[in-house]
Amino acid sequence: MVETKRTGADSVPVANQGAAPPSASMVWDAWGIQAGHQPLPAQIRGLLSQVFGVSGDPVARRDEGDVPLRESVLTPAQRDGLVAVVGAGNVSTDHRDRLLHAGGKSTPDLLRRRADGPQDAPDAIVAPADHEQVVAVLAYCAEQAVAVVPFGGGTSVVGGVDPVRGRFDTVIALDLRRLDSIAQVDPVSGTATLGAGLTGPRTEELLAAQGLSLGHFPQSFEFATIGGFAATRSSGQASAGYGRFDDMVQRLTVATPSGTLVLGRAPASAAGPDLRELFLGSEGVLGVITEVTVRVHPRPETVGYQAWSFPDFATGAAALRAVVQAGAAPTVLRLSDEAETGLNLARSGDIGGDAVSGCLAVTTYEGTAAHVAARQAEAEALLSAAGGTALGETPARQWEHGRFAAPYTRDALLDLAVLCETLETATTWSNLADLKAKVTAALTDSLTAQGTPPLVMCHISHTYPTGASLYFTIVAAQTDDPIAQWAVAKRAVGDAIVAGGGTITHHHAVGTDHRPWMSDEIGELGVRVLRAVKRELDPAGILNPGKLIR
Amino acid sequence: MVETKRTGADSVPVANQGAAPPSASMVWDAWGIQAGHQPLPAQIRGLLSQVFGVSGDPVARRDEGDVPLRESVLTPAQRDGLVAVVGAGNVSTDHRDRLLHAGGKSTPDLLRRRADGPQDAPDAIVAPADHEQVVAVLAYCAEQAVAVVPFGGGTSVVGGVDPVRGRFDTVIALDLRRLDSIAQVDPVSGTATLGAGLTGPRTEELLAAQGLSLGHFPQSFEFATIGGFAATRSSGQASAGYGRFDDMVQRLTVATPSGTLVLGRAPASAAGPDLRELFLGSEGVLGVITEVTVRVHPRPETVGYQAWSFPDFATGAAALRAVVQAGAAPTVLRLSDEAETGLNLARSGDIGGDAVSGCLAVTTYEGTAAHVAARQAEAEALLSAAGGTALGETPARQWEHGRFAAPYTRDALLDLAVLCETLETATTWSNLADLKAKVTAALTDSLTAQGTPPLVMCHISHTYPTGASLYFTIVAAQTDDPIAQWAVAKRAVGDAIVAGGGTITHHHAVGTDHRPWMSDEIGELGVRVLRAVKRELDPAGILNPGKLIR
Repeated sequence: MVETKRTGADSVPVANQGAAPPSASMVWDAWGIQAGHQPLPAQIRGLLSQVFGVSGDPVARRDEGDVPLRESVLTPAQRDGLVAVVGAGNVSTDHRDRLLHAGGKSTPDLLRRRADGPQDAPDAIVAPADHEQVVAVLAYCAEQAVAVVPFGGGTSVVGGVDPVRGRFDTVIALDLRRLDSIAQVDPVSGTATLGAGLTGPRTEELLAAQGLSLGHFPQSFEFATIGGFAATRSSGQASAGYGRFDDMVQRLTVATPSGTLVLGRAPASAAGPDLRELFLGSEGVLGVITEVTVRVHPRPETVGYQAWSFPDFATGAAALRAVVQAGAAPTVLRLSDEAETGLNLARSGDIGGDAVSGCLAVTTYEGTAAHVAARQAEAEALLSAAGGTALGETPARQWEHGRFAAPYTRDALLDLAVLCETLETATTWSNLADLKAKVTAALTDSLTAQGTPPLVMCHISHTYPTGASLYFTIVAAQTDDPIAQWAVAKRAVGDAIVAGGGTITHHHAVGTDHRPWMSDEIGELGVRVLRAVKRELDPAGILNPGKLIR
Repeated sequence: MVETKRTGADSVPVANQGAAPPSASMVWDAWGIQAGHQPLPAQIRGLLSQVFGVSGDPVARRDEGDVPLRESVLTPAQRDGLVAVVGAGNVSTDHRDRLLHAGGKSTPDLLRRRADGPQDAPDAIVAPADHEQVVAVLAYCAEQAVAVVPFGGGTSVVGGVDPVRGRFDTVIALDLRRLDSIAQVDPVSGTATLGAGLTGPRTEELLAAQGLSLGHFPQSFEFATIGGFAATRSSGQASAGYGRFDDMVQRLTVATPSGTLVLGRAPASAAGPDLRELFLGSEGVLGVITEVTVRVHPRPETVGYQAWSFPDFATGAAALRAVVQAGAAPTVLRLSDEAETGLNLARSGDIGGDAVSGCLAVTTYEGTAAHVAARQAEAEALLSAAGGTALGETPARQWEHGRFAAPYTRDALLDLAVLCETLETATTWSNLADLKAKVTAALTDSLTAQGTPPLVMCHISHTYPTGASLYFTIVAAQTDDPIAQWAVAKRAVGDAIVAGGGTITHHHAVGTDHRPWMSDEIGELGVRVLRAVKRELDPAGILNPGKLIR
């Protein structure tokens, strides 16, 4: 139903972007495309059996056609009403389309999809062609009291695209992937105006044709969309060089049930509050982002790679801090802790390869040859002075090669009935070690108390002059009810994060899963401000109910 | 009445900060302190007589004591109510205190103050000691239907602190200068938590004691406060290196009639909309910023200076663009156009000095010696390749020496009955030349039509990868009614800016003067969003009526 312009991966001139074609839909019950899924090597399965007591034999997954689905309650009149806006081919109640829009890719999402019994899904998938059709669909749904879940790549790991109905009987997924063109490129100013439905690879492909790049490479890059990056404040692996996605945004066009907003008239302004920042991170609750003008840059002439070893995490973190506070500006700057380095998850997809002792750090540098040489020299002097040992280019290139593969590994673990999930936070440099210890303790204590002591690994992947992110990967044996098992751990770790002075999410967004901590994050009065904005823009309350705020 | 800790300028360890002590109040009818005011040299006065037909003899100004002032309507009961919150010494209806809080420092403000007849002023000045007292004053004023104008340094040039009553009979100035302490410094994370009432020099003085600097040097630096910088999205002359003030903000504490907001838990977050961005630029209309945690940095080891000449503005602008798009990161990066360079206003306060041909650019570089050397080498290669000729350090040091003096020159011109005002905008690099031409034409046409052809000068002082600011200085003969004369020109130029794709203000804020263009800036729906937020936080509507939005 949803038209996707499929282009072979071969034609995509972006290095190391992974295996997926630019506009692929993900499989319904796991991350990514089928071809990306490989069973773990026998050696690893044996190790997992030993450590977690699992059988080592993958659990069989269901065929799409065999999955019982809650019946669509979209009325024929509503179908006609939506068809009148977007055309007959773009309203679907098809079993497979509904399954493909049944939610995101958090571990609880995937566990729910692998569970027996009927699945929930949106009552219809509606795919508008442009901004005006989005506005018209929202107006129609507000009138009909139909909830609307904006849907891009479907990569949310926090429940952000789950088909929550709230107080409505009916919910549709508003699939934005037909908004997939570049409206304008301004090479002098270094900006591009992108449709919300463009995926990461397709964006890079279209920009590359003009010698440009966006440089936004989150782990979801292969499937996620421009609108999703904006609506969730995504942050990519090259954030040290090119910034978070929200930093890149110059202008936003937003459709709401109350009308259209076009925000961002200049590179910077003092004309009051910056309303772009109200829609960045709004997760489809305040409006639907349909077009984003972003900062782009010339494709780099040169890329420098260097991996580093540090004796321990504290030494490595202090080294990263020295680099970012000096403004030495690498493009990628990340550090794995001892556990992640030891398990070699630092080189995602390469479990069981050669181990690096201590803590592995990866740096890359992009730009003209002169720019790269100057930046690399300054950063390397600081990293050496701070106790780092250069390891050469190879481990950095290996990291880059496998950098989108980790979610596939999670599926392979779930297939073996091993629990695997990730979560992240950020805090100041001075609070970083303390918060890391508290998060690790909360995870370890809550899972151990359930009889499933976890392995907890961590890395820093986003750095700022004042602090850094902490990204945790948790692996444990599953209990009989792994959804409940993780819910207990998630509650404990969320409480530990806010008590420990961290943000409840640095780049995964809020969705359903982090909503309980929003009043810790912005206070009850902050939540009231968001509700006041929502009442003005979405008086019927149809936009993505159950997400972000109560 | 308001306690200010006066510290001699000699003890302030900040280079080139000008003549004012760290917490000086400005004179009531002009910029700055009395000692800063010098008549223009006779040669310049002669030139002004020739060009603008003025006498060349300064107009006499009134003594404070002789100025008739609208009577205060604060009731004794209200006075008691406010005294109960802040103490007797901190509620004033004194003639001089009221005059000193009678408004900001736009040219219309100064012309109104120099006009004959009675002056308006707040009915009282209330100076709380801390956040809790601010909250209590707001609650009391909401109950009493008293309008509140938050007042920091009083440097607004857009009417932002004028005593507008709106639908209320009574208005107070809420003087925040007693909130003047540093609550916390975190040297590891590079942050400092600053009271809203700290002035620029006092902030630098307190940080310097710990080897740190904020690096925010707008033209208002000597008098403006931290709270004002945040509430107006101030941008300083070192913005190329250290960013705009809003970029520096990590955390905000805001008092509102509905309670307190503390926003910003981490260096970066994806926990929904960034509500800090709703209060940055809110100009006291949505709340009163009482404390700001900002990013700070070590005081630079080295400062590199280099001035440049470009044959014309277009060549110079392209050179600046090359530097900022390459990420070459000077600390100061600015370019005067031919008119400004010719009149040597590029070296503020040095009118009549040696002229520089073409267009003058100023660059500085701060950091460690190695950092400065690398950045300066990269930037200078780009500036040379783009057609620049290096002029050495002297013109750059001269610019820095005089950089806070221009507002005093404006007063000297007003004293001679010469109209002088400034305004600014920003746009993309590709639109910069076109917008500059349109703004210049609108100013020239509207003032020439009134029989007073102006001199219009321009510089770029804030650069971004995607565009830059344009700052205009306008000098013309005055008509019999210079307030009306400028109002006509301002209307024409504001319309030209929004029609030409610029923002109505890059760093002067909105106040009363730019309010007519807010719906061009963010749309009618954007204005409705701001009103919805205001209704939630300030249901009685007492906060700074008449500013920012209708």
